[in-house]
Amino acid sequence: MLRLYDYLPSGNGYKVRLLLTQLGIPFERIELDILKGLTRTPEFLAKFPNGRIPAVELEDSKLLFESNAIITYFAEGTPFLPDDKYNRAQVMQWLFFEQYSHEPYIASVRFLVMYPQVSDDRRMIIDFMRRRGHDGLGVMEGHLKSHDWFVGQHYSIADIALYAYTNVAGDGGFDLSAYPSIRAWLERVKSQPKHIPITQG
Amino acid sequence: MLRLYDYLPSGNGYKVRLLLTQLGIPFERIELDILKGLTRTPEFLAKFPNGRIPAVELEDSKLLFESNAIITYFAEGTPFLPDDKYNRAQVMQWLFFEQYSHEPYIASVRFLVMYPQVSDDRRMIIDFMRRRGHDGLGVMEGHLKSHDWFVGQHYSIADIALYAYTNVAGDGGFDLSAYPSIRAWLERVKSQPKHIPITQG
Repeated sequence: MLRLYDYLPSGNGYKVRLLLTQLGIPFERIELDILKGLTRTPEFLAKFPNGRIPAVELEDSKLLFESNAIITYFAEGTPFLPDDKYNRAQVMQWLFFEQYSHEPYIASVRFLVMYPQVSDDRRMIIDFMRRRGHDGLGVMEGHLKSHDWFVGQHYSIADIALYAYTNVAGDGGFDLSAYPSIRAWLERVKSQPKHIPITQG
Repeated sequence: MLRLYDYLPSGNGYKVRLLLTQLGIPFERIELDILKGLTRTPEFLAKFPNGRIPAVELEDSKLLFESNAIITYFAEGTPFLPDDKYNRAQVMQWLFFEQYSHEPYIASVRFLVMYPQVSDDRRMIIDFMRRRGHDGLGVMEGHLKSHDWFVGQHYSIADIALYAYTNVAGDGGFDLSAYPSIRAWLERVKSQPKHIPITQG
């Protein structure tokens, strides 16, 4: 069976759990506490050299890391990733936007706030990170003012990727009250069939 | 004709210039000085809400941003992006690795070093960013010890994406002498047909 190396509080891990659940693909979840360094052991690094979850071991023992690469792999050939070349490119655009302009700020601030015991140089620039997080939310709000979904007329992995940390942005002190279109979109995502919350393994 | 909004010193822009040149796709390059705020004008933001180059306007006026989404779009159906599903997933894995664990540190340190006049809160954590950059280079070195290319037996957009800022990492003070496999790979990339340097528009 597909093995997912995961950490329940992780939004990046949640993207994979949510997609696999919505696709009905069974998987074994292996919980690794990142705070205890369990993704930096020699055994883990030998398989996944970037030392991060989520990571998957496919049924034929092939390995894959990077949350958005994993969800792209499983979404291929399903309604979660469009066939049309330009629509696919737009999905990729939003996935890269998520990893570059959203997650590094919104997820990182959440992490620093949730785990004040963690020593991290980034704590020095938490105000900067909050501003950058709001920049990312502003781009999302602008798009969602005139679109129900990030790409085309359907829920896709672009929505899954951006939903993961946006829905828990409040954990990092991000107030979403100024983003009505984002809040309406969060509800649309939650109402999709087989939706699960981040806390569900 | 395809229009590429670009900034010559940008490694992210260079990825697109290099791939389009190697594919023989003609394009018009529109240089925008990011230091003068030319990617944050209302006109630019109306088209590309994340306010960053590279961004492209396709011949049918369709728009696309995010360097790695753009190179994925153009590589589709060419030898620069494998057909095999798992190999494609590995290309995506390295593209996301590049944008998450490489570019934010190696490109950002280069930017902060090259433009000391730019005020940036990240300057406070430049030592942290250098360590993270070396973490990324370490992952690359580990892979390249036993592989000629990032995915499969061929040069692909995974190599293009990682080459862009690795080859100019020295601008940010990164010493590559401890990474012999990376240095040999840089030479392999440079020897590919129709290679152009970052300084060529």
